[in-house]
Amino acid sequence: MPRWEPDAPARLQEAALALFAERGFDDTTVAQIAERAGLTKRTFFRYFADKREVLFWGADQIETLFVAAMDEAPASAPALAVIAVALDGLAARSEDQRELIGRRYRIMAASPELSERQHVKIAAMSAAVAGALRERGVGDTAAALAARAGVSVLFLSVERWIDPANASPLRKLVAESLASLREVVAEA
Amino acid sequence: MPRWEPDAPARLQEAALALFAERGFDDTTVAQIAERAGLTKRTFFRYFADKREVLFWGADQIETLFVAAMDEAPASAPALAVIAVALDGLAARSEDQRELIGRRYRIMAASPELSERQHVKIAAMSAAVAGALRERGVGDTAAALAARAGVSVLFLSVERWIDPANASPLRKLVAESLASLREVVAEA
Repeated sequence: MPRWEPDAPARLQEAALALFAERGFDDTTVAQIAERAGLTKRTFFRYFADKREVLFWGADQIETLFVAAMDEAPASAPALAVIAVALDGLAARSEDQRELIGRRYRIMAASPELSERQHVKIAAMSAAVAGALRERGVGDTAAALAARAGVSVLFLSVERWIDPANASPLRKLVAESLASLREVVAEA
Repeated sequence: MPRWEPDAPARLQEAALALFAERGFDDTTVAQIAERAGLTKRTFFRYFADKREVLFWGADQIETLFVAAMDEAPASAPALAVIAVALDGLAARSEDQRELIGRRYRIMAASPELSERQHVKIAAMSAAVAGALRERGVGDTAAALAARAGVSVLFLSVERWIDPANASPLRKLVAESLASLREVVAEA
């Protein structure tokens, strides 16, 4: 009879992140993750379908959070102002996850398969954000451009934030990237 | 002995595009493409590694063309002005390919596998354009944001252009999308 392991998902994720960083995502097996966590493969599969799922545990709701954070902006706000409000809200609630997100990003960057998945996720998030802007009455092209620019600002800021040499809060980096976007567009 | 077939690649692509549109990319085989073109599978594999390659024949140099088109901008031009020059050049040389590109896009949109490939290609193109901007002395964040905005403008414009209900030249649609980007950023 398996024991009830209330912290099993967290232990499995910690073991998985450590192994992916040590030997790479592709060369790590579920059996190795379970062993490192002191659990069985059977326990692993009670919580996760595969090793990709354990890596992204707790991360896949970011698209939903982004769209929900747009609600904080007044109905009359122009498209990019809505994006700015959402990004600031998202950044504020992510500040304490820098280490976890940084580990996950470094693992993704080292795996072509995971990098591809990330591009597909970014495209899906851009489409969801554009849809939410259209619901606010923003035109198709403006909604698509504002959404893609906003998602670019988010991911560029996160990349700077997780750099071990960086000590800035994510909110500050997001504000800087948005300012850079305004500059780039204004000067041309 | 196989006959020399000088127009074999074009015939194979035409047959492939017709079959992909009729029955979907996933449900079309190389044997069917060869048969529709009146050629053998062996002839197919003399020109293409697989059915994906025949679809993208002639399309995969767009990243190189984008970066090359940036050379037309003066060295002192700001980042987004360089992008604008490149987009206008790219659009001008694509005007006569609307039908082929439209067929290809509709096939891609109907296949999850090809849509994923497209997202990965777009990300690679953004990285190449950002690299070319950095070589011109543009800072990292500004280069990344201008590149992603420019690539977004290109693909949004192409999506509008290939809409059968649309009669505008691609250059006009690119100019409109760039104007929309300026508006979106200026009003926030």
